[in-house]
Amino acid sequence: MKQSLLTVNLSRIKEMLDVSSSIGTLPQGGLCRLALSDEDKQMRDIFIKWLQDLNLQVRVDDFGNIYGRREGKDKDAPAVVVGSHLDTQPQGGRFDGILGVLSALEVIRVLNDCDIETKRPIEIVNFTNEEGARFEPPMLGSGGVAGVFDKDFILNLKDSSGKRFGDELQRIGYAGSEENRIKDMYGYVELHIEQGPVLERENISIAAVEGIQGITWLEVRLTGQADHAGPTPMSMRKDALVAAAKMIVAVQQIAKDIDDTATTTVGRLSVAPGAVNCVPGEVVFTIDIRHFNDIVRERAVESVLEKISTIAAVEGVGIEVSKLWEIPATAFSQHIVKHVIKGAEMSGYSVRNMVSGAGHDAKYMNHIVPSAMIFVPSVGGKSHCPEELTLWEDIEKGANVLLYVVHELAQE
Amino acid sequence: MKQSLLTVNLSRIKEMLDVSSSIGTLPQGGLCRLALSDEDKQMRDIFIKWLQDLNLQVRVDDFGNIYGRREGKDKDAPAVVVGSHLDTQPQGGRFDGILGVLSALEVIRVLNDCDIETKRPIEIVNFTNEEGARFEPPMLGSGGVAGVFDKDFILNLKDSSGKRFGDELQRIGYAGSEENRIKDMYGYVELHIEQGPVLERENISIAAVEGIQGITWLEVRLTGQADHAGPTPMSMRKDALVAAAKMIVAVQQIAKDIDDTATTTVGRLSVAPGAVNCVPGEVVFTIDIRHFNDIVRERAVESVLEKISTIAAVEGVGIEVSKLWEIPATAFSQHIVKHVIKGAEMSGYSVRNMVSGAGHDAKYMNHIVPSAMIFVPSVGGKSHCPEELTLWEDIEKGANVLLYVVHELAQE
Repeated sequence: MKQSLLTVNLSRIKEMLDVSSSIGTLPQGGLCRLALSDEDKQMRDIFIKWLQDLNLQVRVDDFGNIYGRREGKDKDAPAVVVGSHLDTQPQGGRFDGILGVLSALEVIRVLNDCDIETKRPIEIVNFTNEEGARFEPPMLGSGGVAGVFDKDFILNLKDSSGKRFGDELQRIGYAGSEENRIKDMYGYVELHIEQGPVLERENISIAAVEGIQGITWLEVRLTGQADHAGPTPMSMRKDALVAAAKMIVAVQQIAKDIDDTATTTVGRLSVAPGAVNCVPGEVVFTIDIRHFNDIVRERAVESVLEKISTIAAVEGVGIEVSKLWEIPATAFSQHIVKHVIKGAEMSGYSVRNMVSGAGHDAKYMNHIVPSAMIFVPSVGGKSHCPEELTLWEDIEKGANVLLYVVHELAQE
Repeated sequence: MKQSLLTVNLSRIKEMLDVSSSIGTLPQGGLCRLALSDEDKQMRDIFIKWLQDLNLQVRVDDFGNIYGRREGKDKDAPAVVVGSHLDTQPQGGRFDGILGVLSALEVIRVLNDCDIETKRPIEIVNFTNEEGARFEPPMLGSGGVAGVFDKDFILNLKDSSGKRFGDELQRIGYAGSEENRIKDMYGYVELHIEQGPVLERENISIAAVEGIQGITWLEVRLTGQADHAGPTPMSMRKDALVAAAKMIVAVQQIAKDIDDTATTTVGRLSVAPGAVNCVPGEVVFTIDIRHFNDIVRERAVESVLEKISTIAAVEGVGIEVSKLWEIPATAFSQHIVKHVIKGAEMSGYSVRNMVSGAGHDAKYMNHIVPSAMIFVPSVGGKSHCPEELTLWEDIEKGANVLLYVVHELAQE
């Protein structure tokens, strides 16, 4: 059977999305469906019913991850895994990871409708607590399966009200067994909204996500001299905020000078004493530096350190820099990325390669199985807010590409 | 009698300063003597005893200002007024206004010792709540006498614990009568520490203060686009903090381009959402702009507005600017300023003209009587802190110049 003939039925995705959008609805239109909450349980129960309606074999593992398995001709062949997450931020949107899970259900439905028996088994997955909004850090379900986090670590995590992850898992009835964890995998594919403005602004429908940027977080503490604004001439000041301002301008220029994908962001900044008529004596700010190439990122970090040290010396302020966090880049499977590009091209959709700036379940899955992602446009680049929106035509295109990729992989 | 022969006795100023430094002493060495506190009452009681020891006629007015009058040959001649304030900041120093009051006492003592009867009466004054640390705004005693503030406004002011100015004045026994307010004045002279670094760095002992800078306070609100740091390329951002940084750099350059006395200060700044991995969507900051020439200051404000509007347009962020506060410059009496310069020169002290960047009681007194000030160096430019220090030799020089000026004015 020719792959180009297979297409999803958008109205069925819409129907599922309408159901999802009614569980944890916020007054202003978005969703609040925190991991292991009553709303999460309600959505999980419906998801399991949907899996069963498709005749999938349902399993729940010890992290509450839910799987639905469709057997292949070769039951022992490593499975193609497809999914994402159904939880949201407290002021979250209706699409985010939800789109990836619901599109996976539609993929199975199309295969069932067409009586297509694939060589490999296919497994749909809903990962627990991707958002990290209730239990930090994020991506606990996929991180648990991938061995990034220890089982005890995850089960003993507490939310802000002191409730344990393990207890909440029991409470909503989703504490499954360790042997149900996914294994024997061939590839992992995840459809997700971009959460950035690039696809929309370039008028492109599909991104073949070839990896996730590496990140370095720095904290910079500048010590100048707090003085009265009135009696202290400009030439006698050691103004920590003027020094910080020059650094912020320099730091954003460093990213611009590298390439279109490098980013540097000063997101947090505080000033002391912080009075209208006081020359700032101390400023503390953060720098977030990202690139897909770890060597480029490390060089960017060096450039940043060199530049801000020079400015500190010229401005006569003391400087201390500490590294808050660092994570290397993730390179996804080029094999799967090529399928994504081919799937888009065969359907006549505009497509580009992209590196994700944010983390996703695919990041940790890539530790244990070749993985890749498909992004569809976010209107206005907005996500994690009630205004989060992806157009129906883009959802349809994304789901069609997902269908293509899953089918291709499952026949290999 | 030749003026150059009159000199103060430093050891007597030291003795009084030691007593003052023992009332409201902080563990780390400075003073906490808030207006109308028990410590203020204790200091006031001693001050009144010192006035009486010098045979001065003591009066207390309805704002708690304390006067000590030494009659002149011509009792009806307008008086020469000399003084400052004995209250401090909560983490204040031992010198600040205290030096001006204690030096005034020494001036009278020298005149008494030398049996000098001046033509004009001389009045020493201690103004209430100059600091504004307990009751805002500052300079309430001098502002009340000068008619800047309404009597009801002052008496009904409350401190942070809800205590009324008028009640606290009654409580410490310093609610005097309205007719005791100072009137029939010829000139007002105030010795004060510089509170800035200029005299020390230029190795000059005396400043003849010819006025107080005019001040404009602006608040700037920038509205960009809050985005995820990862998925948003540099070229697609509307980063409110990068825009603010460029403005801060530009604003400080505007002051440097005017002259050595112009100042621009960004003292307060806040960033939202303020997360390490979020492109700042909103920044609010203040700009403090000062110059002695109101026209120059107004032009500087225009330059600032033009510059920051241009940067906002280039950076694609919205901008709203509001004027928080504005006060014109104060020009002191050139007649008294000349006496200060002559007094310093006759004693062989280095002297320069200066414009005060901070407000003082002389600012409001200048509304109702020709006024001027004498500044002595602050070590390290520090004030309003326990480290506040003026060297004994500088105190002696300042008090000698004060003695010269008061004596000259009193004989005119």
